[in-house]
Amino acid sequence: MLERIVGFQSRLRSNGFAAAVLMHPRDVYYFAGTGQPCNLLIPAKGEPILLARRALDWVKTDSDIATIIKGSGGKDLRLALQSAGVFKNGVKLGLSLDIVPTVLCRKLEQSLPECTIEDVSPLLLEQRMRKDEKEIAAIRSAAELFQRAHEVMMQELRPGVTELEVASKVYAALRRGEHEGIPRFRRWDATLHPDGLVISGSNTWRISGHAMTVTGVGLSPSVPWGPSTKPLASGETVVIDVGINYHGYHADIARTYIVGKATAEQKRVFDVIKQVYSAIFAQVKPGVTGQALFKTAWEILVSHGLEGYFQGYGEMKGNYVGHGIGLEMDEPPVLDANCTTVLAENMTIALEPKVIIPEWGAIALEDTAVVTATGCEIFCPVTRELFEVT
Amino acid sequence: MLERIVGFQSRLRSNGFAAAVLMHPRDVYYFAGTGQPCNLLIPAKGEPILLARRALDWVKTDSDIATIIKGSGGKDLRLALQSAGVFKNGVKLGLSLDIVPTVLCRKLEQSLPECTIEDVSPLLLEQRMRKDEKEIAAIRSAAELFQRAHEVMMQELRPGVTELEVASKVYAALRRGEHEGIPRFRRWDATLHPDGLVISGSNTWRISGHAMTVTGVGLSPSVPWGPSTKPLASGETVVIDVGINYHGYHADIARTYIVGKATAEQKRVFDVIKQVYSAIFAQVKPGVTGQALFKTAWEILVSHGLEGYFQGYGEMKGNYVGHGIGLEMDEPPVLDANCTTVLAENMTIALEPKVIIPEWGAIALEDTAVVTATGCEIFCPVTRELFEVT
Repeated sequence: MLERIVGFQSRLRSNGFAAAVLMHPRDVYYFAGTGQPCNLLIPAKGEPILLARRALDWVKTDSDIATIIKGSGGKDLRLALQSAGVFKNGVKLGLSLDIVPTVLCRKLEQSLPECTIEDVSPLLLEQRMRKDEKEIAAIRSAAELFQRAHEVMMQELRPGVTELEVASKVYAALRRGEHEGIPRFRRWDATLHPDGLVISGSNTWRISGHAMTVTGVGLSPSVPWGPSTKPLASGETVVIDVGINYHGYHADIARTYIVGKATAEQKRVFDVIKQVYSAIFAQVKPGVTGQALFKTAWEILVSHGLEGYFQGYGEMKGNYVGHGIGLEMDEPPVLDANCTTVLAENMTIALEPKVIIPEWGAIALEDTAVVTATGCEIFCPVTRELFEVT
Repeated sequence: MLERIVGFQSRLRSNGFAAAVLMHPRDVYYFAGTGQPCNLLIPAKGEPILLARRALDWVKTDSDIATIIKGSGGKDLRLALQSAGVFKNGVKLGLSLDIVPTVLCRKLEQSLPECTIEDVSPLLLEQRMRKDEKEIAAIRSAAELFQRAHEVMMQELRPGVTELEVASKVYAALRRGEHEGIPRFRRWDATLHPDGLVISGSNTWRISGHAMTVTGVGLSPSVPWGPSTKPLASGETVVIDVGINYHGYHADIARTYIVGKATAEQKRVFDVIKQVYSAIFAQVKPGVTGQALFKTAWEILVSHGLEGYFQGYGEMKGNYVGHGIGLEMDEPPVLDANCTTVLAENMTIALEPKVIIPEWGAIALEDTAVVTATGCEIFCPVTRELFEVT
């Protein structure tokens, strides 16, 4: 993890930060290897200091940061900044202000009036786009777990069973495989069920707020997405789209099933999505942009007259084909029609072509992969086909 | 929900706010009845305006707010503030700044330079302490679901089964009963597993960071609490502590089990906790403070020489007996040694006396209740005893 810190320090220096103070659990975990509540001070030059808000012994066991002390509030931070030699009038401190609540930041501004506090998240997230070997291994393990979800889908889908019953078994199977049980987002106001979206028939074209594609309707207006008590019916399409968290790292995977035998039309639409899937994954390699991937997908859909249903329809329509993924489900880059970020080796991404056709159903395929020197490696062992569950 | 808005407007006026702009999903849900992404403008006087960031039709179905428009950013908000007649130089706007990230607040400060933006959460959370009939009914339903978790515990606990296997079945059982699957916290950096803490033997005295009592060790340093792959052993204490979310409202409940027959010592310690439990719930009624409840608990523990293990031990020790609960697991008041908040009718609270004895085990009892005119009603039907699973 020392390499991660050294890399980040170089970004801090290039951007005029005297130091970063990281408080968000995932940011701390990335550099310090502990999920315990800590503040991590990374000076632009010199040694980091890890301030354990609690569970000091535990933090010392988890982390290989050399200097670990007990501390939490503004005073402790001031002392740490002084001891790191970065505390002087007018210095710029970096915090993850896309996450840190305003009250907390304002409190720090009061206790450190000599500093200005600016958002350091863009630098951090840019660095986190490329994963190291250990991170890639964890994401691979997360993706391999999907096999368990698939087995449940193949066993449990039948007319009369509810989305919720299937989802509860998907969770149990994933959890026994060491799914952490909490899919994590960067966004402050987003949540996802830990059993994933098991969504069927008429619920596939009810598109709820936060996500743009298949969301389902959930159980109540308080969490208006996710599996519901709707029973499956014969001939329906059923999508599962699930975020699996293994040792803190995520895979995001989707497959589509038919309750019974697929119709010719279901097969035809699936084949289009499969064609998109194959084309965009084949295109992935260092140097390619999200924009280029989106264009490839779009042109195939246009050629089949399905572009109006790609990633939703009408006002509820996205213009993306995927996103970065790692400690959080939705990391940069967003691979959309405007994405000029260039893919590089060791980036991990999820690509997710989907069509949602009102009064008809949805077809979804999603996989998580790592960009290699010459292409990409897709992690999930479950084949990409339209599964008929008979 | 109109009553909730009228009550809040009176608080806004008493505290010099021209309006509140609520963006946090739970805050919006409380007043507007929708979990879709919205911003809710509540002027100190006059009609609220609900700005739907997405899924406008869905929002219109969910909410009985009269004025619902599409809108998201600073410009839409400015128009809404103008149309609500509260937009002039120097007005104070209230946001939930304990939640809203700094970047978002700063962006709003830039697009609304005429306003100052202050934290309105304390007013909102104070109002939310007392629940109405519909809220109490949802919390009661959440608590009743615990019966399902208890049945799993009674069926599944045996030597060799892992904490994780039991927890995965607890989840499946709760989920089929319409547990929303996502326990929600007010705190920006807290998370809890949706299957709850199923914690056994030596893991009961490993106290991890965020919580102060029985936490378990989890699966990896990335989420270092929760159920683990540790197998249960004969004679161990096993605690389950779970937050159940039904229609957006939570119950927080814990029980203790023995794998096999309880020893005399386990029974003795349980009886002390049961005595604390009975004494503090018997004491609950309007007018009582958290301080008084803590004192009652503390004195009983002292009389049995167990105060050193109450709510943890050594540095990992809490000085509370419970907390408010509702749309979030950890609402005010915190019922601790310093709590002078006076309980009032229709407050919903969780009381949770626990002892954690290193190299021995833990005993926990927790229930969620509503304060009535003369006492309280405990919701969960599962009896409070030391369950022997043989």
